[in-house]
Amino acid sequence: MKIFTYEHMVHYYETDQMKVVHHSNYIRWMEEARTALLKEIGWPFDMLEKNGLISPVVDVNCKYMRSMHYDDIVEMRTRILEFTGIRLHVGYEFYNKATGELCAKGDSTHCFIDPDGRPVIVKKIYPEFHELLQSLSKED
Amino acid sequence: MKIFTYEHMVHYYETDQMKVVHHSNYIRWMEEARTALLKEIGWPFDMLEKNGLISPVVDVNCKYMRSMHYDDIVEMRTRILEFTGIRLHVGYEFYNKATGELCAKGDSTHCFIDPDGRPVIVKKIYPEFHELLQSLSKED
Amino acid sequence: MKIFTYEHMVHYYETDQMKVVHHSNYIRWMEEARTALLKEIGWPFDMLEKNGLISPVVDVNCKYMRSMHYDDIVEMRTRILEFTGIRLHVGYEFYNKATGELCAKGDSTHCFIDPDGRPVIVKKIYPEFHELLQSLSKED
Amino acid sequence: MKIFTYEHMVHYYETDQMKVVHHSNYIRWMEEARTALLKEIGWPFDMLEKNGLISPVVDVNCKYMRSMHYDDIVEMRTRILEFTGIRLHVGYEFYNKATGELCAKGDSTHCFIDPDGRPVIVKKIYPEFHELLQSLSKED
Repeated sequence: MKIFTYEHMVHYYETDQMKVVHHSNYIRWMEEARTALLKEIGWPFDMLEKNGLISPVVDVNCKYMRSMHYDDIVEMRTRILEFTGIRLHVGYEFYNKATGELCAKGDSTHCFIDPDGRPVIVKKIYPEFHELLQSLSKED
Repeated sequence: MKIFTYEHMVHYYETDQMKVVHHSNYIRWMEEARTALLKEIGWPFDMLEKNGLISPVVDVNCKYMRSMHYDDIVEMRTRILEFTGIRLHVGYEFYNKATGELCAKGDSTHCFIDPDGRPVIVKKIYPEFHELLQSLSKED
Repeated sequence: MKIFTYEHMVHYYETDQMKVVHHSNYIRWMEEARTALLKEIGWPFDMLEKNGLISPVVDVNCKYMRSMHYDDIVEMRTRILEFTGIRLHVGYEFYNKATGELCAKGDSTHCFIDPDGRPVIVKKIYPEFHELLQSLSKED
Repeated sequence: MKIFTYEHMVHYYETDQMKVVHHSNYIRWMEEARTALLKEIGWPFDMLEKNGLISPVVDVNCKYMRSMHYDDIVEMRTRILEFTGIRLHVGYEFYNKATGELCAKGDSTHCFIDPDGRPVIVKKIYPEFHELLQSLSKED
């Protein structure tokens, strides 16, 4: 499985009064990393959306191990864990870049629908995108 | 000028590591109070939007006087300061409900456009809405 | 298990360009419902925090079934699924109040630490809080 | 006046159902640009905060001229407009990097306080920081 990296610097407005990053931001960073991944492989999210392929979140999970703080650089490692042709399963690891520590782990599942909300078989409309997602999810 | 009141309880995720409410949230609360006002006078924002009347923010200003904290109840007092027929100017005061202290003051200006981004003369399509906004902005 | 209810009205700033609520907000609403629950049972979060009992999120999970929209009223039903004495497991259901439809389901796990980050045995410092959490998690 | 530049790529979660960036995010980006500026001149915000110098926002203003969209690169140009020794006034311009268009303009004022909330005369505790802020605000 190919690993994609994405970096995010923690903003002041992402902290809370516990003086750490509020946990909801990790869910947003997953989206940042996921859209960066799609752009990197040549299928950016806004292009998909303009072509009527919408990709809502089906579920999201996150496990928090170590706090992150203002101004930390979060190094995310993102993998396509599985693509069934209908559902995309993405995994994320959150490292503190300065210390190398694994701070959190998460995953999210996505389906593909058209603007009317009907499920889309990706293979039918974008066979190369289908192939690419499947090949990226293969174990070496 | 009629004063509308709106209450918001400060959420944990609205605090930052200074242990007070992050200043950007006041801008969001203005939107909450403004949409509550429009609903109260019978012209809810989603109805306007469904009828093709979009109302973007032209400018926003906020002055911060006292910090607000987690679990505080913010009592907002909102007024329509002026309605020119094209632009709507709204004023907001943020009180700490428990102490009665004025904690912040703000205002925002809005125009009205159609889905293609063209300015709309409110009087032409919703004359009663136009009248209402003007009457609400009148000094007693 | 006692069910607690909490209502949240969807704000405009919680939507995204898919014209639905952005999925990260459900994680924030879980926090709203959880802190409302603690307040309702007489152990509000800010009181715990002032007494040096901090309760970070260990993990969070959410499954999205139906989109929610601007101005919808989200009716949340919250349960204490389990309290081990060290970890608290909370479950959430998100209903669209107007239609009664179940739109999402989630859960979160929390530990208890002191200001130095050391795990706290709740029973030792707040035995009544310990009893209460355990009794609320009991199946009827 | 020295101009500092800062870039921010618009995230999906920063859009709203008008399919543009929600206006509250510009206030957050000002904070990003301001903290980047302080870091660039060698007085990073977290260092100031660790040394007991807190810098709350006194007021914030923003004028919106053109919408920004998902995946746009916002090029911010930031200037120290004035430093009185007690108050810092910062100006921001938001350009769409791809088109070069000016999309928004803003400014914010900040004071300096100690952890007990008392105003701090910057010159007394950090004379070099005082000098630097004043020199950066000088017209050429």
